[in-house]
Amino acid sequence: MWDAGGTGAASGSDFLQLDTADAPVGGLSDWLAGRLREAISDGRLPVGSRLPASRLLAAELRVSRGVVTEAYRRLSEDGHVAGRGRKGTVVVAAPLTAPPSSPATAATATGALFAGEPGAEIFDALRAAPARVDLSPGLPDLAAFPRAAWLRAERAVLGTLSASGFGYGDPRGTPALRRAVANWLARNRGIRADPEDILVVAGTAQALTLLARVLHRRGIRQVAVEDPGSLGARQHLRDGLLETPPVPVDSEGIRVDALRATGAPAVVLTPAHQFPTGVVLGGERRRELIRWAGEGGLIIEDDYDAEHRYDRPPVAALRSMLAEQVCYAGSVSKLLAPALRVGWVLAPPRYRDALLDAKRYADLGNAALPQLVLAHLMESGELERHLRLLRRRHRHRRDAMIRALAAHLPDARVHGAAAGLHLMITLPGEVADRDLAAAALARGVKTQPLSWHAQRPHPPGLVLGYAANTPTLITEGVAVLGEVVREFVG
Amino acid sequence: MWDAGGTGAASGSDFLQLDTADAPVGGLSDWLAGRLREAISDGRLPVGSRLPASRLLAAELRVSRGVVTEAYRRLSEDGHVAGRGRKGTVVVAAPLTAPPSSPATAATATGALFAGEPGAEIFDALRAAPARVDLSPGLPDLAAFPRAAWLRAERAVLGTLSASGFGYGDPRGTPALRRAVANWLARNRGIRADPEDILVVAGTAQALTLLARVLHRRGIRQVAVEDPGSLGARQHLRDGLLETPPVPVDSEGIRVDALRATGAPAVVLTPAHQFPTGVVLGGERRRELIRWAGEGGLIIEDDYDAEHRYDRPPVAALRSMLAEQVCYAGSVSKLLAPALRVGWVLAPPRYRDALLDAKRYADLGNAALPQLVLAHLMESGELERHLRLLRRRHRHRRDAMIRALAAHLPDARVHGAAAGLHLMITLPGEVADRDLAAAALARGVKTQPLSWHAQRPHPPGLVLGYAANTPTLITEGVAVLGEVVREFVG
Repeated sequence: MWDAGGTGAASGSDFLQLDTADAPVGGLSDWLAGRLREAISDGRLPVGSRLPASRLLAAELRVSRGVVTEAYRRLSEDGHVAGRGRKGTVVVAAPLTAPPSSPATAATATGALFAGEPGAEIFDALRAAPARVDLSPGLPDLAAFPRAAWLRAERAVLGTLSASGFGYGDPRGTPALRRAVANWLARNRGIRADPEDILVVAGTAQALTLLARVLHRRGIRQVAVEDPGSLGARQHLRDGLLETPPVPVDSEGIRVDALRATGAPAVVLTPAHQFPTGVVLGGERRRELIRWAGEGGLIIEDDYDAEHRYDRPPVAALRSMLAEQVCYAGSVSKLLAPALRVGWVLAPPRYRDALLDAKRYADLGNAALPQLVLAHLMESGELERHLRLLRRRHRHRRDAMIRALAAHLPDARVHGAAAGLHLMITLPGEVADRDLAAAALARGVKTQPLSWHAQRPHPPGLVLGYAANTPTLITEGVAVLGEVVREFVG
Repeated sequence: MWDAGGTGAASGSDFLQLDTADAPVGGLSDWLAGRLREAISDGRLPVGSRLPASRLLAAELRVSRGVVTEAYRRLSEDGHVAGRGRKGTVVVAAPLTAPPSSPATAATATGALFAGEPGAEIFDALRAAPARVDLSPGLPDLAAFPRAAWLRAERAVLGTLSASGFGYGDPRGTPALRRAVANWLARNRGIRADPEDILVVAGTAQALTLLARVLHRRGIRQVAVEDPGSLGARQHLRDGLLETPPVPVDSEGIRVDALRATGAPAVVLTPAHQFPTGVVLGGERRRELIRWAGEGGLIIEDDYDAEHRYDRPPVAALRSMLAEQVCYAGSVSKLLAPALRVGWVLAPPRYRDALLDAKRYADLGNAALPQLVLAHLMESGELERHLRLLRRRHRHRRDAMIRALAAHLPDARVHGAAAGLHLMITLPGEVADRDLAAAALARGVKTQPLSWHAQRPHPPGLVLGYAANTPTLITEGVAVLGEVVREFVG
């Protein structure tokens, strides 16, 4: 019996029904790590339970002890288990992915998901679809969430908060978090901001919805978007009754001449790491954009993953150069966890009051406790520490994905891998990328087709997140993509 | 020196500059309790610091020890200090109110606050106005917030949550909280609900805003409201481009004949404890409403403080009788703390999907951690325990307010004091209640004038919250109101 309580001595492996006869030749450690990962994923080895001593498990399976320690090392590298000294090796995080579904379920989900135009519920449906490997973009390594630091900060907050802090608060956000965000933006994004001008919101999604409302009420009916560009952002704008004329993106970023030609008075941009192509906005384009903005254009800067970079220097936010014409939005979704639903907006002065009214009517302001906990983590240096840890892990995972793509998809072109949490591949030929995504999902690998994020014609492509997955799963997932592409492209 | 660290021995009172010569004859304990409360409020006695031993303080002030222990007893009853055995008496919560402002500031705030029609920022402005006693309605006893239980539940959540729990979640809310809310509604409000049908939102304010959006997009342009009725609810509806025809409320609740006469297809109601009058919707009116709803009318039931009742049996929610025609909204703002920004909506089937889309576009769903912590408190019985504690405290405070009103405002009529967190008084004569509220605020007592919450002519009145205040402060505040009214009414 496995010991789920974490106190008694762990012993055997009967519960797992391990049989080394199932293992491929020469791949015992890989095989064992895979079986243990499954057991952690489906709850047979819950978080907090202890793995058997390597000596015991090796004896039971009749393998060398090195096979077991190597399997444990891989699980540890993946962040699923951790050595706890005399307590042995303990499960600390379950894999992100759901257990593999029955083929019937997967086929149904697949059919519904990638047929037709994606609707409002598309990301929920994709999230709910079962898969062995989830390569959806947009998530950092969630297993690295600093649970202990969060709890320590929460204790500190609850120990000092006055009773009135539990009442209705300032709809702009708590003063402590607005100060912490101003300092964070100065240190990490080159932006000088007065805490009084920062509006705390429930993530970039809310920022876009509030802004869409304000712009619509001021008579604006069009907000241009990058193409390809985020489907989610486009959906939020359209829900706000705004048209979203597409503006092409090339290797230097958005084509400002084409933006000008749309006649739209505002544009949503991802200058530091364009979504989904990963392009950095070039210097000449920045100067052109500044001219466009100087003539009255509004830039909505979605700085969604700018803190994550690997092989290149940081790219300053447009907001740092152009405060009067840029509405800047950022969040902790890619820094810590989307589940926190905390972000911030720095609006140009002429939109500030209207945006505050919109936030007030939306929800009277974000919840206070998580804001105060986050302020603690930001001001204590804990968040920067976490970011450094993420950068090391993510780079490692990014490298694993690039190696796997070279091995399994040698004809794919890789885009935008120098930064962020995802990369994009484009493929030769005429195949519909939704069919690729559907076929991959049917085999347990979740991706997003480039066509979800494009309004104009484009080569077939897939958007692949690497940050939330272990190198082992990434390699496994990309191998499946390789099989699928070979079948379709031939 | 006072000991702020909580470990050394507390000694003297030099820091407070106490001089018993300032005390009124026969009121030494009162006076001492008041001075200590000021010191806690302005930070000289921070939370966590220890009061001097009663024996020592009595000796220093040259009063009997009973004077000191009586003062400590009052602070303890108010929830500001707690006996900690051998550690002595420790400050555990600061008073809710800000320190008294300079007369100049108060005068400015007063002038701006109660002049003209209240705008979007009115409640923020009222909250920010300095006052010694805050009798604004709408808050439970915030000093009673179960900090230790919250932290314990948070630790349990962080110890077991899977990594994927930190990702984007179900925009309807976490399954755990939806289950807990369904159970809560069954136990406390007589409502049978499937957890699948519950939508977790950021408080009743968000519920109204989302619903206003859905109704407007379905072509609805009018939502009737009770009169008098909540200014905040009316503002949210109007921001959603809906007209809010007023329907009179009498001693049996809303006048359904008058509702019918407006022709509005929907109405916002507070049946269990009408805001602000405190009237309970009578049986005959319920039957009339059910007939009106049966003809196609939509009832939006704002069940804002129904769990709090003192001298009467619980009143079942309209939703429990009429699931198809009632959109039910509740929250933890009055149960725990508005700062949590968590509430729930149970929509009729025909609005469910549209409301979910609205929530998704609003913010992709509430933050996950606080939902899971709250689910823990609900399912463990902790929240019901808290509610019992609040009921005892609130009843005591309600009684203190009624006694103080009898003493200081014998001509005032008291409404709706059998339940809830506030009561309403109306006054004889022709005085403008905004002038009363302004004059009271200038003297350090915050209230809301009835006219904020009324669209049609009405007697002058004030809406007075008692739940968030100590009996001592309530008595002090009502005494000031008595002075003000005597000056105005003569």
